[in-house]
Amino acid sequence: MTGKRTEHDFLGEREIPDNCYYGIQTLRAKENFDITGISIGKEPLFIKAFGYVKKAAALANRELGVLSPEKTGAIVYACDRLIAGEFLDQFISDLIQGGAGTSTNMNANEVIANVGLEKMGKPKGAYEFLHPNNDVNLSQSTNDAYPSAFRIALYLKMESFAQALCQLQQAFYDKGKEFKDVIKMGRTQLQDAVPMTLGQEFNAFATTIGEDVVQLRQAEKLITEVNMGATAIGTGVNAPANYAAVCVKHLAEISDVPVTLAPDLIEATYDTGAFVQLSGTMKRSAIKLSKICNDLRLLSSGPRCGLHEINLPPLQPGSSIMPGKVNPVIPEVVNQACFYVIGADLTVTLAAEAGQLQLNVMEPVLGFALFTSLEYLTKACNTLREKCVVGITANAEHAKEMVMNSIGIVTQLNPILGYETCAAVAREALASGKSIHNLVVTEKKLITQQKWDEVFSLENLIHPKFITS
Amino acid sequence: MTGKRTEHDFLGEREIPDNCYYGIQTLRAKENFDITGISIGKEPLFIKAFGYVKKAAALANRELGVLSPEKTGAIVYACDRLIAGEFLDQFISDLIQGGAGTSTNMNANEVIANVGLEKMGKPKGAYEFLHPNNDVNLSQSTNDAYPSAFRIALYLKMESFAQALCQLQQAFYDKGKEFKDVIKMGRTQLQDAVPMTLGQEFNAFATTIGEDVVQLRQAEKLITEVNMGATAIGTGVNAPANYAAVCVKHLAEISDVPVTLAPDLIEATYDTGAFVQLSGTMKRSAIKLSKICNDLRLLSSGPRCGLHEINLPPLQPGSSIMPGKVNPVIPEVVNQACFYVIGADLTVTLAAEAGQLQLNVMEPVLGFALFTSLEYLTKACNTLREKCVVGITANAEHAKEMVMNSIGIVTQLNPILGYETCAAVAREALASGKSIHNLVVTEKKLITQQKWDEVFSLENLIHPKFITS
Amino acid sequence: MTGKRTEHDFLGEREIPDNCYYGIQTLRAKENFDITGISIGKEPLFIKAFGYVKKAAALANRELGVLSPEKTGAIVYACDRLIAGEFLDQFISDLIQGGAGTSTNMNANEVIANVGLEKMGKPKGAYEFLHPNNDVNLSQSTNDAYPSAFRIALYLKMESFAQALCQLQQAFYDKGKEFKDVIKMGRTQLQDAVPMTLGQEFNAFATTIGEDVVQLRQAEKLITEVNMGATAIGTGVNAPANYAAVCVKHLAEISDVPVTLAPDLIEATYDTGAFVQLSGTMKRSAIKLSKICNDLRLLSSGPRCGLHEINLPPLQPGSSIMPGKVNPVIPEVVNQACFYVIGADLTVTLAAEAGQLQLNVMEPVLGFALFTSLEYLTKACNTLREKCVVGITANAEHAKEMVMNSIGIVTQLNPILGYETCAAVAREALASGKSIHNLVVTEKKLITQQKWDEVFSLENLIHPKFITS
Amino acid sequence: MTGKRTEHDFLGEREIPDNCYYGIQTLRAKENFDITGISIGKEPLFIKAFGYVKKAAALANRELGVLSPEKTGAIVYACDRLIAGEFLDQFISDLIQGGAGTSTNMNANEVIANVGLEKMGKPKGAYEFLHPNNDVNLSQSTNDAYPSAFRIALYLKMESFAQALCQLQQAFYDKGKEFKDVIKMGRTQLQDAVPMTLGQEFNAFATTIGEDVVQLRQAEKLITEVNMGATAIGTGVNAPANYAAVCVKHLAEISDVPVTLAPDLIEATYDTGAFVQLSGTMKRSAIKLSKICNDLRLLSSGPRCGLHEINLPPLQPGSSIMPGKVNPVIPEVVNQACFYVIGADLTVTLAAEAGQLQLNVMEPVLGFALFTSLEYLTKACNTLREKCVVGITANAEHAKEMVMNSIGIVTQLNPILGYETCAAVAREALASGKSIHNLVVTEKKLITQQKWDEVFSLENLIHPKFITS
Repeated sequence: MTGKRTEHDFLGEREIPDNCYYGIQTLRAKENFDITGISIGKEPLFIKAFGYVKKAAALANRELGVLSPEKTGAIVYACDRLIAGEFLDQFISDLIQGGAGTSTNMNANEVIANVGLEKMGKPKGAYEFLHPNNDVNLSQSTNDAYPSAFRIALYLKMESFAQALCQLQQAFYDKGKEFKDVIKMGRTQLQDAVPMTLGQEFNAFATTIGEDVVQLRQAEKLITEVNMGATAIGTGVNAPANYAAVCVKHLAEISDVPVTLAPDLIEATYDTGAFVQLSGTMKRSAIKLSKICNDLRLLSSGPRCGLHEINLPPLQPGSSIMPGKVNPVIPEVVNQACFYVIGADLTVTLAAEAGQLQLNVMEPVLGFALFTSLEYLTKACNTLREKCVVGITANAEHAKEMVMNSIGIVTQLNPILGYETCAAVAREALASGKSIHNLVVTEKKLITQQKWDEVFSLENLIHPKFITS
Repeated sequence: MTGKRTEHDFLGEREIPDNCYYGIQTLRAKENFDITGISIGKEPLFIKAFGYVKKAAALANRELGVLSPEKTGAIVYACDRLIAGEFLDQFISDLIQGGAGTSTNMNANEVIANVGLEKMGKPKGAYEFLHPNNDVNLSQSTNDAYPSAFRIALYLKMESFAQALCQLQQAFYDKGKEFKDVIKMGRTQLQDAVPMTLGQEFNAFATTIGEDVVQLRQAEKLITEVNMGATAIGTGVNAPANYAAVCVKHLAEISDVPVTLAPDLIEATYDTGAFVQLSGTMKRSAIKLSKICNDLRLLSSGPRCGLHEINLPPLQPGSSIMPGKVNPVIPEVVNQACFYVIGADLTVTLAAEAGQLQLNVMEPVLGFALFTSLEYLTKACNTLREKCVVGITANAEHAKEMVMNSIGIVTQLNPILGYETCAAVAREALASGKSIHNLVVTEKKLITQQKWDEVFSLENLIHPKFITS
Repeated sequence: MTGKRTEHDFLGEREIPDNCYYGIQTLRAKENFDITGISIGKEPLFIKAFGYVKKAAALANRELGVLSPEKTGAIVYACDRLIAGEFLDQFISDLIQGGAGTSTNMNANEVIANVGLEKMGKPKGAYEFLHPNNDVNLSQSTNDAYPSAFRIALYLKMESFAQALCQLQQAFYDKGKEFKDVIKMGRTQLQDAVPMTLGQEFNAFATTIGEDVVQLRQAEKLITEVNMGATAIGTGVNAPANYAAVCVKHLAEISDVPVTLAPDLIEATYDTGAFVQLSGTMKRSAIKLSKICNDLRLLSSGPRCGLHEINLPPLQPGSSIMPGKVNPVIPEVVNQACFYVIGADLTVTLAAEAGQLQLNVMEPVLGFALFTSLEYLTKACNTLREKCVVGITANAEHAKEMVMNSIGIVTQLNPILGYETCAAVAREALASGKSIHNLVVTEKKLITQQKWDEVFSLENLIHPKFITS
Repeated sequence: MTGKRTEHDFLGEREIPDNCYYGIQTLRAKENFDITGISIGKEPLFIKAFGYVKKAAALANRELGVLSPEKTGAIVYACDRLIAGEFLDQFISDLIQGGAGTSTNMNANEVIANVGLEKMGKPKGAYEFLHPNNDVNLSQSTNDAYPSAFRIALYLKMESFAQALCQLQQAFYDKGKEFKDVIKMGRTQLQDAVPMTLGQEFNAFATTIGEDVVQLRQAEKLITEVNMGATAIGTGVNAPANYAAVCVKHLAEISDVPVTLAPDLIEATYDTGAFVQLSGTMKRSAIKLSKICNDLRLLSSGPRCGLHEINLPPLQPGSSIMPGKVNPVIPEVVNQACFYVIGADLTVTLAAEAGQLQLNVMEPVLGFALFTSLEYLTKACNTLREKCVVGITANAEHAKEMVMNSIGIVTQLNPILGYETCAAVAREALASGKSIHNLVVTEKKLITQQKWDEVFSLENLIHPKFITS
């Protein structure tokens, strides 16, 4: 059976199981905050980012002569183990917490101190040799260390998301190529419009996804602006001269994340504009993905009483009662992930607006919203690609048949017959059920069969030329 | 040329054109607030409601002996003219304003005072005879008079909205009756499911709209709770004993609106829960209407390359380039009104959350959001009914043809053949393009033609019985 | 080492570890959907609700003669174990999934079938004796079973939330009583207004929370309307006559939840209005709670440079750098839970609006949003009560001192001195820094000390009477 | 009395008053859409933008030889008058309309045709000489002309917004300079933290506003990508070869707006990502402005029972009942404008997500939301600057007094005394009411008066150095 040690803070004493690397403040936080049941250790990149931040701070403190080599070594050792992914189970505070992240920061400070103490051959809790606040947190405040670690973790997750977007873009391009000769009806307002190719449609999906990779890269620039050295409110109180610059230099080197120092540390300490922008970028991606999934579901509707232009790969029986029914389950789940992300963007909005004076105390819920959004949307993109897009097939015959049977193709005759004549033909086709070909070539002899063939050749359907009489 | 009079308040003096019934504080407000360019006079029911409120206060003050008969008479006279719809052009403050509505309340106080003075044979601005604050606003504060008038105006607009919902509900019921024998494919997840009637579909639209009338009635109960007598913060400071009850009694009588006195005036003076609930109710209606419009657009998609089960009345040429194209413009415009309302609900949410301590200073934007939402959604309902629903026709032949050609009807054979056999038949139909009838009756002889006819009779398609072998 | 069994569905065969009670469709779902990493088994009340639903269906099928006694017994046995909380680890599908909940429904059908088979002495997978679709799902579809179970689970969670609200309300009432004689400045627009008691302020918190219990009860009425018997789209295809009524009767008895049958099953099968209303109700609660927490943080601001009227119980050191700092961490975490809930309401809005034709396929994300919202907000209420409200103390001296030193108390002299004189006094006080007492009693002798004492007695500050000269 | 002329379209004939420049399709739109009551003519820049677009199209058509010099001249003449701001009263369609803007586009086509006909000496309606569709709309569709004009109008409004932001930024910088020596308490989580200057606080407001000018410039890049030449769905059907490039070249020249041609016209015709991004950028600005206004209201709270660090210029009496009360009405109205903008962003989100297949038919409500947001937020910025920021004064004495009387200054002693000693001192100060100076210098003699003076010199409060014992 494990023993206990006693720790104290300025509110009193508490016992901590001896096998725990966290300390009294982490324990208090665990007791105080029980909202989501999801602990910060469930975000490994966040813990890794704290490893980077605390190591960079220690090295800067060393370089500036305010931390001893021995303590520095112990802290660096502990941080490296965090960076390697160890001790996740020691990070037990709830992701949503009061205190602007102080509990998370202290959780990191305490774990690092005790791992460091162990390395120094001291018992856990012997903070006189390595102190969570005085040493691990030296020249720092929660208000600079927490958001800096948060930003690094976001950056790492954004990289995964960017990759997922790129791969999805490629998958759509590949399908665009595959379907480049599949003629189909283009639709505006759900009404038959003019012909296009299925390739163009999938290519446009690729284009629109690709644009969001660009947006994400822009968001990264703001996300990587950190405020290390700001300490409590941006005045840098209690940090040695030049600390901010030295610390950020180390942080960039250690983490391989292109962090830079924010130019106005007062502003940087409370401003959440970068998170709002990132969330907005993700909302934009969610809107686009949702629109694409809506289209995929429409295009695959049927099989007999819908558009039925494409087939999504069948993945599971679609109904517990309707035999043979197969549903577009992947686009459906992606739609739902998108709705989550859009909702989370509102959470971000509310939290960002709630900042007051020198700090935005709502950062933990910003973290919760952004971490989950990035996670879900990355998975949604990968799911969409792997389980759906790559397996889509076209019903080319059916699609072309609908085009040639449509009224919408009359638009192509505008330059020859004029808008008003075409409109009259269209009305007659609609009323009589006759085809446009029947009306303009056979019955009314408005154009010759030869002209018809020219206008409605595969080549001209795909790349319409301006053909007049 | 009109002369000018000089008015003063505790910030100084200003000149007011002599033909203006408003006074110095209204002038200041006009200069201070220029956001929407929409003046409060553009909400006639709001001005009317102020007439009710100020009249009720005057009568209560008279009844309790704190206002002279002469002054009371003058105020009542002025209020009656407001109630009759006069002087809208004198209400010039912007709908969105700072000061929690003080400018609007003072606009009413000043106009009433000057109209009353005119009636008393005094010049405008001679406030020693009838004072905007000391007399017209007697026993009141902006913080009770403004929200009370706001609530009455909302109630009046809610009545119009309720009527629009009821009429729309009836229009859908009528169509439900008209289409009761039109067999069509029911669809889940945009995939063919099992048959139903178009009548059932329209009937369900009526049902779902009808439920929102109920919700609206519940919202009215909270909206009609007023806080007259609360004065500044709910303690009733400066109001005579029993004033609140007497005032509310008068208010209910005068306005014919079932207002009641809020039980906790401190809470009632800052709480905006009733507005949040009303906005939520309207959001719910917007969601339902949007869903219905999405369905109408889907069902009328085509004409050749879509579902084409119904026809919406053609209202205008649908395209500047595509001849003969007719678009579902009315559902489209209703969708957009719904998106406005859902957005406005977020504005309401933010404003409600921003209340601090004894007052919610954001009430003007609550008013802006709720007034416009009610207005737009009422018009949207009326437009949808008049310009679209009543003129919808069914393509009964086509709809039934799709059903009989579908694979989904195999579900109806589950109780006879079992889920697994049906699933196998469905797969074969999909792969081969054959009809279910062909497979189960002709090719595989799984059931007789007689049984088929029993299962797929019109009667059984509409009201499916549990038919086993 | 565990063996494997082979199961098949109409898409092919798969091997299932023999110790698993779930089957092939659950396995497919697990592979297809990986978004949140949170499995449905993490919502024990949802699984319990499926136990209720499937048991009620079996009993109804038995009563109507379409299910054998033996099979009924096996199903009931399995359901009872689900109801008792067993087999949660067998429910492995992701909470957010495509297919409108088919995977969750099939997960339940498969687990129940295999538990039932075990009871019958048959091996798992021997579905010819007890079939997930033909027997467990008999007379049902995902489209009625899933939302019915969902609604029951919501109801059970709403009960916990209602209880948390009631307890919080009581805690505020208790504090209201405790603080009934603490005079403090009331503030509107953050500016000093007129005096009130801290008791009134806390009482109002209780009132406003209490109103939401009423709203929640109204939401329960809609939530408990189920559509059992609707089967696929509300036409009741494949269910025996009278099944719906019989099933709902059993369901109410078994679950002790007051479920009723929806009047229009077509509408009930796709409509999500009840979820929208519930989410709106929770959003309203979140807005109110957030406003209360904002107030608590304001009132406890300081200790030296803020309002400092109340003290929140100190729970943890507030800063890693600022010694002695204690922060309002509990209101802060509650604010954040509220922001989550408001964001989730948007997810609900989007999902509700996305319903198409005969079904809303987005129900799983509705479930995710509502389950987490209820969970987080319930915990937030309990946290707020236990860790904060019950331990709040007042700084009565300081609060009263601020009142008597304020300019705002001049309002109380309005009925004696008139608005304009009071305004002049107020301006002078502001400019000179003098107190109102000094000006009106000592310097200007506008009223006597005796009259002053009458107006500003404790009694009159708490319950202001209308005192004229 | 004015006569009437008869016009026809493919739905029939209508009479138009002879003095109207609009035609039959505009008339139908006016009758069909009545939601907001706000006509497109109320957005003069939108009409101007149509002038640019139609002129560019005519010139391109001329250059490519498909439009006669005479017709080109007439169209250009009419467009120039639109560009000059004429004929706004002829643009009568509601801003929110169905049909994806076809009514607005046809309104422009009809007005231009009739103004052109007048110039040609022909009667209005003599479309055989100059046709709205065949000539004015030549080589165009609503689906490229409408969004292109929309984007140009947005760009022009964005320029005004950018200017308002820049001026506001400058006003904050100026105040930052003015207040550079005003020492005040910095606050995190509303609790006293460490000292800073009021100048730093206002400077940070300037910084944060300035960042949004950068964002706005990025948004402009996407907004100016137009899809002229896409025609109906992006395939360019009915447009002459090379038309897109030629048209965009003319458009950039004529309008002086840096428009470019979108690279994928299929995607560009339906994608609304640029609008989402712009709306997100404005939401970000709204969040920042709202936060700043919240701070201004907090800092000016009081005058006796609040923070009272700054004074906002008094603009109007603040209360109808409380004499002398002055409220922060300008920040309040700005908060509300921000809430409107954030709500409008949700409308944009919903509309963007609702796009289907080859078009987003919800563009008119995107226009409504973005036009009003830009308008309101621009005005809000200007109001904030002119009516509030430039007139703010500091209560420097009071602010410094609070600092020196605070407990928070103990943080500054951390490097000398260590975190734990400081925490103990802080606790004692809080409990006893004593000052930090009293405790550490006088009572406990932990540091000398000289050291105290060094640490708490004005210079060191403003730019804290790292001072150890």
